Amino acid sequence: MREAYQEQLDKLAEELAAMSTMVGNAMEQATTALLGADLSLAEQVIDDDMKVDEARARCEEHAFGLLALQAPVAGDLRTVISTIHAAESLERMGDLALHVAKAARRRHPQPVLPEDVKTYFSQMGQVAVQLANRLNQILRTQDVQQARDLEVDDDEMDDLHRHLFSVVMGAEWSHGVSAAVDITLLGRFYERYADHAVSVARRIVYVVTGTMPTSERP
Amino acid sequence: MREAYQEQLDKLAEELAAMSTMVGNAMEQATTALLGADLSLAEQVIDDDMKVDEARARCEEHAFGLLALQAPVAGDLRTVISTIHAAESLERMGDLALHVAKAARRRHPQPVLPEDVKTYFSQMGQVAVQLANRLNQILRTQDVQQARDLEVDDDEMDDLHRHLFSVVMGAEWSHGVSAAVDITLLGRFYERYADHAVSVARRIVYVVTGTMPTSERP
Repeated sequence: MREAYQEQLDKLAEELAAMSTMVGNAMEQATTALLGADLSLAEQVIDDDMKVDEARARCEEHAFGLLALQAPVAGDLRTVISTIHAAESLERMGDLALHVAKAARRRHPQPVLPEDVKTYFSQMGQVAVQLANRLNQILRTQDVQQARDLEVDDDEMDDLHRHLFSVVMGAEWSHGVSAAVDITLLGRFYERYADHAVSVARRIVYVVTGTMPTSERP
Repeated sequence: MREAYQEQLDKLAEELAAMSTMVGNAMEQATTALLGADLSLAEQVIDDDMKVDEARARCEEHAFGLLALQAPVAGDLRTVISTIHAAESLERMGDLALHVAKAARRRHPQPVLPEDVKTYFSQMGQVAVQLANRLNQILRTQDVQQARDLEVDDDEMDDLHRHLFSVVMGAEWSHGVSAAVDITLLGRFYERYADHAVSVARRIVYVVTGTMPTSERP
């Protein structure tokens, strides 16, 4: 019984890790589509989002099955519930990549981004993909130290986001209100993507240590 | 056993309903603070957010206790897990009210909103509070029809949000980029608040009927 159970838990972790790969790829492609005004790539991200939603539904279903059949307690119960939370956050990361792709599609064939902010989005995209990759590792290894370190990458995202805002709000801004609005929302999508990655990592710290990390997001 | 169990389930529903009251009040006060540049009210919302976070933690703890001690299956399991999801969404609604209050504080004593968009925020605030109040009812009654109807209120929020954008992006806009950026983010906070309310209502439909409503948000 115990062995079958552990197998199911491992399978759940595997499913979450697979989701992190999917949403990492989605954000990578969405960023490329955004930077290059690439319509077909944007549409691929939009089509693929359904697969993330399906993966989440499957994951939740398996977690339900585990709860119903095995009735875990204590640490094991914590693990299964955290899986449900993590799947929700990962689906949301997929949605945010979807929003980026939709913004790229909405303005096509016009580029959404003026030249002088492209570099911010290129970097935010890199940090986002890095977060998803690290999350993948952490989901496989349950490495608490790595999970805690993820917040450092998120600080990098926050810095980029803050700089981006200072450019948009600065006196030099010459691209008008409409571009500023697009960029404000896009910046927020990347920032939220990173927040959700941190939230998954924090849940893993909780699963392993039994305590939620106290440092709340600013 | 069964009776004690039902009592615990009722208590969970009661806790969620209390959270919906808290986040409804938070958004009402945050909107008033935003419209009137009222610093002390903004700070009250900011201070009170901790109570929402605590209520969520308590709610999750009770759901855990129920899972560990009663090991519910089928419909009861669905109910308890949905409680955990709902508590998360409600906490997030509280966070969004907090963001509105912080925006009001950040620009104080300057008003954040130019006169000609105030009416949009006043209406979005009303819709948001109405959503929280209806959610409170639905959480207490588990009324599926009311839960389904909640999406209509959300459509109203989406309409307001769309109109707001057309004003900000329109040729008549004379308040500059910085105000446009503030308003873009604020509009998004109200829209997301409504989305989370819908997501809680959809979970209740799922709990009662066993099927997630299919109409996905656009």
